[in-house]
Amino acid sequence: AEAESAAAAEDAGPGVQYEGLKIIREGKIFKIQLNRPKKYNALTHDMYRGIAAALAEAAEDKACSVAVLTGAGDYYCSGNDLSNFTNVTPDQIPKMAKDARYILIDFVRAFIDFPKPLISLVNGPAVGISVTTLGLCDAVYCSDKATFQTPFSNLGQSPEACSSYTFPKIMGPAKANELLIFNKKINAQEAFDRNLVSEVIPHDKFQEETAKRIEQYSKFPPQSMRLSKVLNRSSELETLRRVNEAEAELLEERWQSQECMNAIMAFFARK
Amino acid sequence: AEAESAAAAEDAGPGVQYEGLKIIREGKIFKIQLNRPKKYNALTHDMYRGIAAALAEAAEDKACSVAVLTGAGDYYCSGNDLSNFTNVTPDQIPKMAKDARYILIDFVRAFIDFPKPLISLVNGPAVGISVTTLGLCDAVYCSDKATFQTPFSNLGQSPEACSSYTFPKIMGPAKANELLIFNKKINAQEAFDRNLVSEVIPHDKFQEETAKRIEQYSKFPPQSMRLSKVLNRSSELETLRRVNEAEAELLEERWQSQECMNAIMAFFARK
Amino acid sequence: AEAESAAAAEDAGPGVQYEGLKIIREGKIFKIQLNRPKKYNALTHDMYRGIAAALAEAAEDKACSVAVLTGAGDYYCSGNDLSNFTNVTPDQIPKMAKDARYILIDFVRAFIDFPKPLISLVNGPAVGISVTTLGLCDAVYCSDKATFQTPFSNLGQSPEACSSYTFPKIMGPAKANELLIFNKKINAQEAFDRNLVSEVIPHDKFQEETAKRIEQYSKFPPQSMRLSKVLNRSSELETLRRVNEAEAELLEERWQSQECMNAIMAFFARK
Repeated sequence: AEAESAAAAEDAGPGVQYEGLKIIREGKIFKIQLNRPKKYNALTHDMYRGIAAALAEAAEDKACSVAVLTGAGDYYCSGNDLSNFTNVTPDQIPKMAKDARYILIDFVRAFIDFPKPLISLVNGPAVGISVTTLGLCDAVYCSDKATFQTPFSNLGQSPEACSSYTFPKIMGPAKANELLIFNKKINAQEAFDRNLVSEVIPHDKFQEETAKRIEQYSKFPPQSMRLSKVLNRSSELETLRRVNEAEAELLEERWQSQECMNAIMAFFARK
Repeated sequence: AEAESAAAAEDAGPGVQYEGLKIIREGKIFKIQLNRPKKYNALTHDMYRGIAAALAEAAEDKACSVAVLTGAGDYYCSGNDLSNFTNVTPDQIPKMAKDARYILIDFVRAFIDFPKPLISLVNGPAVGISVTTLGLCDAVYCSDKATFQTPFSNLGQSPEACSSYTFPKIMGPAKANELLIFNKKINAQEAFDRNLVSEVIPHDKFQEETAKRIEQYSKFPPQSMRLSKVLNRSSELETLRRVNEAEAELLEERWQSQECMNAIMAFFARK
Repeated sequence: AEAESAAAAEDAGPGVQYEGLKIIREGKIFKIQLNRPKKYNALTHDMYRGIAAALAEAAEDKACSVAVLTGAGDYYCSGNDLSNFTNVTPDQIPKMAKDARYILIDFVRAFIDFPKPLISLVNGPAVGISVTTLGLCDAVYCSDKATFQTPFSNLGQSPEACSSYTFPKIMGPAKANELLIFNKKINAQEAFDRNLVSEVIPHDKFQEETAKRIEQYSKFPPQSMRLSKVLNRSSELETLRRVNEAEAELLEERWQSQECMNAIMAFFARK
């Protein structure tokens, strides 16, 4: 059934091509698939920009009533590609950090401002920013093989994608800070219990079951869904935008810190 | 035991009569019962106004220390009576929509501003505004036969009773928007797990067990309860009032939309 | 293993001594132990001031990367020592209430403003302000023998430590107000399910297991943890400060009320 439904789907077709992403349009569904499976869908700067641009395209696309974000292969997403930090010489670090700050702001802003329902299908392990952005989605379905980890502090970094605000709101500070400060890794059931995830689905039925739900959702009255989504977000829109900028400002500083450099060098030394 | 306690209860007595409602005063308890069981306690405009007036009466009533909201018969409440929309000719729709907007604002405002503990006893299925108002109650006890559904978007409508704000706060956006945007129906245990409900009680003990709890609560120091309730609400009072007005404004527009008319006509065609 | 690790720990050593508290410094861990086990660690005014001062010391202490709060003996803390109210003659009550208000504000403010991760180890029953302050901690580990109760309204009082704001945010109003208004006592598993607690640990492994976690956390990059903590709190810092002052203002009034005096006299009469 999976193979058939994949075969039936329209490929990117006439649309824009995005580096490291595959855009799949099926009926009223606009699906953004992270498509760098050999790197566990780690996000390059091009992919950050591509996702933001694809969301903007979906927002404008009159044929699209719901957008979907998922990963190709076994991983959902292994987070920020750390080679984003290591492909630069020491004297280029301040510029790299500044650029990364604004790439991050624009990327997260695309989630905050997205005016239609946005559904994440977490097909496998999720790390870092692919976990924190879940707090900005409208529904999250995950495979029972999914795991969730945000190893910010042991990489010398700090939370992003408004998770410093959304995670304590979603699961309370005692559980949020275990993830955001203490690097705790949780499984699918724990993510469900913590309200980060809408539903856990057995891995072998994941594609089929999520396709069914999204197909159904895509047929609800589109204006009603769009206006409800915008309404639901409106009471915290200004907070989210402000938090996004504050988080990115702190990260610019963190990325230039000795703690972060040491942690990233230790990470590559272990590899 | 149920029959006895019902027999012991004072009926409305000297108080005001409200269309479609039964007011029951027992000790320090002021109970508002939706009393239109043949229509599954669907809310007419008179009942919206009546509930707001009854809450105002309970707020002023010195003998009342806690207020209770429940339904007569098998249903808690089937939501807004859709015939509110269909008893008008097309040219009356703009006026109907505007009137309904202000009836809704006043109704929800009565919940927001209610200065004493307000307890909901969800004796059976709950739909629409009877679900969303639970987010404004101080305790919610439900029968294990209760279900909860807010089919806004497939009726071409959008959330009310501050649920666009309270539901994401209570259960996180991934679970809230399944209800508010994607029309998901949940059972009693799911409503408990999502923190919408304080406790699930077996249906055959529901009246007895809830009577016991409310009897006990009604005897706590009333000023302390009242001031605690007002305090607990105070940090979000302005937000709730603002959200209520924004939601009602959007609904006025929605009720005049083609999506809404089509959905309501399809609903009655299915009946 | 417990005895050994306790023996290995450095006692207060050169630091300040705080009445009713024991300060234990181990590596990068600054541990504040409530040390009045014969009174179930009930908090005297000296202990309120001492905890605030100890947190300020930990904030400044360059050797400290995480702070820990726990209790000596079988109880975590039985809350505010009610003899704080009864050791005064009736004409001294207004001054006592005013003093207590400002002691409370400073105490809670020390939690709000604490700039490093703060972990609570709830080793046994927790009552009143020792429960409400959990909403201001970054991780909460509890023994499976722990219980949680905030009997404010049946003591004629009202919520503190920002719980009027944090508890509805953490667990939704239907569950929060059962605790804050209706005096419900919950067990360890319920506190976990309500997101007040990060993890429940079997009592006989509690010291060992929590020591392991805290040891691990204390070794993460300290600046990254500190800045993440401050960031996570920043979006609600002003709200927390304002709520703290409003709660304390109401309590000053409550402590002078007839309801409160009656309740406290009844409490001592039962003893």
